Amino acid sequence: MQKYVFGVDVGGTTVKIGYFDLEGNVLDKWEIPTRTEDGGKNILPDVAQSIKDKMAENGIAQEEVAGVGAGVPGPVDGEGHVDVAVNLGWKDVQVRDELQNLLGVPAMAGNDANVAALGEMWRGGGLGCKNLVAVTLGTGIGGGIIIDGKLLTGADGAGGEIGHIHIVDDEPNACGCGNHGCLEQYGSATGVVTLAKRRLAKDDKASVLRDGELSAKAVFDAVKAGDEVAIDIAKEFGEILGKGLGMIASVVNPEMFVIGGGVSKAGEVLFDYIKPSYEKYVFRGSLNTRFALATLGNDAGIYGAAKLVLDAR
Amino acid sequence: MQKYVFGVDVGGTTVKIGYFDLEGNVLDKWEIPTRTEDGGKNILPDVAQSIKDKMAENGIAQEEVAGVGAGVPGPVDGEGHVDVAVNLGWKDVQVRDELQNLLGVPAMAGNDANVAALGEMWRGGGLGCKNLVAVTLGTGIGGGIIIDGKLLTGADGAGGEIGHIHIVDDEPNACGCGNHGCLEQYGSATGVVTLAKRRLAKDDKASVLRDGELSAKAVFDAVKAGDEVAIDIAKEFGEILGKGLGMIASVVNPEMFVIGGGVSKAGEVLFDYIKPSYEKYVFRGSLNTRFALATLGNDAGIYGAAKLVLDAR
Repeated sequence: MQKYVFGVDVGGTTVKIGYFDLEGNVLDKWEIPTRTEDGGKNILPDVAQSIKDKMAENGIAQEEVAGVGAGVPGPVDGEGHVDVAVNLGWKDVQVRDELQNLLGVPAMAGNDANVAALGEMWRGGGLGCKNLVAVTLGTGIGGGIIIDGKLLTGADGAGGEIGHIHIVDDEPNACGCGNHGCLEQYGSATGVVTLAKRRLAKDDKASVLRDGELSAKAVFDAVKAGDEVAIDIAKEFGEILGKGLGMIASVVNPEMFVIGGGVSKAGEVLFDYIKPSYEKYVFRGSLNTRFALATLGNDAGIYGAAKLVLDAR
Repeated sequence: MQKYVFGVDVGGTTVKIGYFDLEGNVLDKWEIPTRTEDGGKNILPDVAQSIKDKMAENGIAQEEVAGVGAGVPGPVDGEGHVDVAVNLGWKDVQVRDELQNLLGVPAMAGNDANVAALGEMWRGGGLGCKNLVAVTLGTGIGGGIIIDGKLLTGADGAGGEIGHIHIVDDEPNACGCGNHGCLEQYGSATGVVTLAKRRLAKDDKASVLRDGELSAKAVFDAVKAGDEVAIDIAKEFGEILGKGLGMIASVVNPEMFVIGGGVSKAGEVLFDYIKPSYEKYVFRGSLNTRFALATLGNDAGIYGAAKLVLDAR
């Protein structure tokens, strides 16, 4: 009888692995290093070995495992195939099939940001929702869109790439994707620092941000302390991000936005800056869309990867 | 045995009705007036009577009818309920249930632009696609998004309201929705006229558009004749619409955009103006997305409404 499901979140430096009962209670979680050398050819065998070791350690039989899901940093097609995942050194890897062969249980693979969205819906900030957009405000902006309980992966695995919505016309700097003026150039942790530098350079107004290292955390700590320059920065951040989320809602009309990633550690104060702009720009049919904080943190990926398998049964 | 399916497209002045075999071949189509008086309470009984008459006329038995689908100009929730449809005078109408009761066959209801998208996928420009965005460039801009063969209706029935994506920041005029700078203020037939008026007012450069009535058709006819002012207008139109479609693709990564509505009668020349902007702004993971013209014209709604029923079986 199937009792357990494994979730794997393959990152550029570590792979997170967890296993769950079929209701999504985590039973154990751990990490192994990601060996990206030689085109990352050891990554999946390492994952498989680590799972086999854990199964042996806990006396878990193969027939008790519903399957293994994996989140991967890059586009993943409907067959669990990855064309390129730069951070892993991968080119043309059949993630689903390889995991299935290595472990002898059903496997699934998806984009990491998409899979994290599924995790937040299953056991996190999006609990109870069937239509949501998860927004991860980290170094960049990751997105995961769930429609009627299912991930929107897109025709070429590029669904939910909301960090690259064009949002500002006159941006001189290029985004990592090569375009100019992408949402993640302003709404990510890196983006907040960019906005902060530009605001600080504008005049000499006193601000705690003029001392110490600039970071999204420093900006929102200063906002909470009433620093006026920091508040200017937060307003600019909220104006741009709220507008971007409004555009997304005019397309998919979600029940909820679940906001996660490093910037979201600032907490609900973010919504004070995002919502006025969202409400100004969004089509009014999406004014009921709610905003919530993600609750699973870095574990969203392993939860969602496990759910991917359960949904495919 | 089920042999036929009816599709209904409820518009503000006429209701289009058609019936099809189960493969989507149209067997007959006709129109009846839309009686919007008294809160539009006669509309659905009129439709039902017209269908009953047609069935009697052709000797179609109730058990031969797979069902009746209806497209409605307004948001429709998952239960086929319409809160408000301004053009019909409707408030709080249970379209699906009422049609089902009136006719004694299964019924379905959806937003007209969404349903038209389904029609174009089934038997039109999107034939063979399972992930597409249909864009209707008419008086406004309607949108319909299909993911894995199913309509994306959104949490509150406002999915695919792509005409109201915010696209221009400094627009003085309000859109019909109340916001300022929506995509349909520039990319619709009305929008093309706005852009034309603004361009013509800018200087005195000679143009055939200075004589006669301004319309989207006049502008694109002039483009084809090499009129430089008209080409300026088409460039502005393409820049804005291409940017908007790029934003949409960064969210849902469709296989194809199917472009319909009055403006699309200009033909493939539209793509010459839309694509350069699309390619400039879209996330590169969506560069494979194709562009096609809609082929069903005003019949897309009845096709899609019929398909809605068949998909629900």
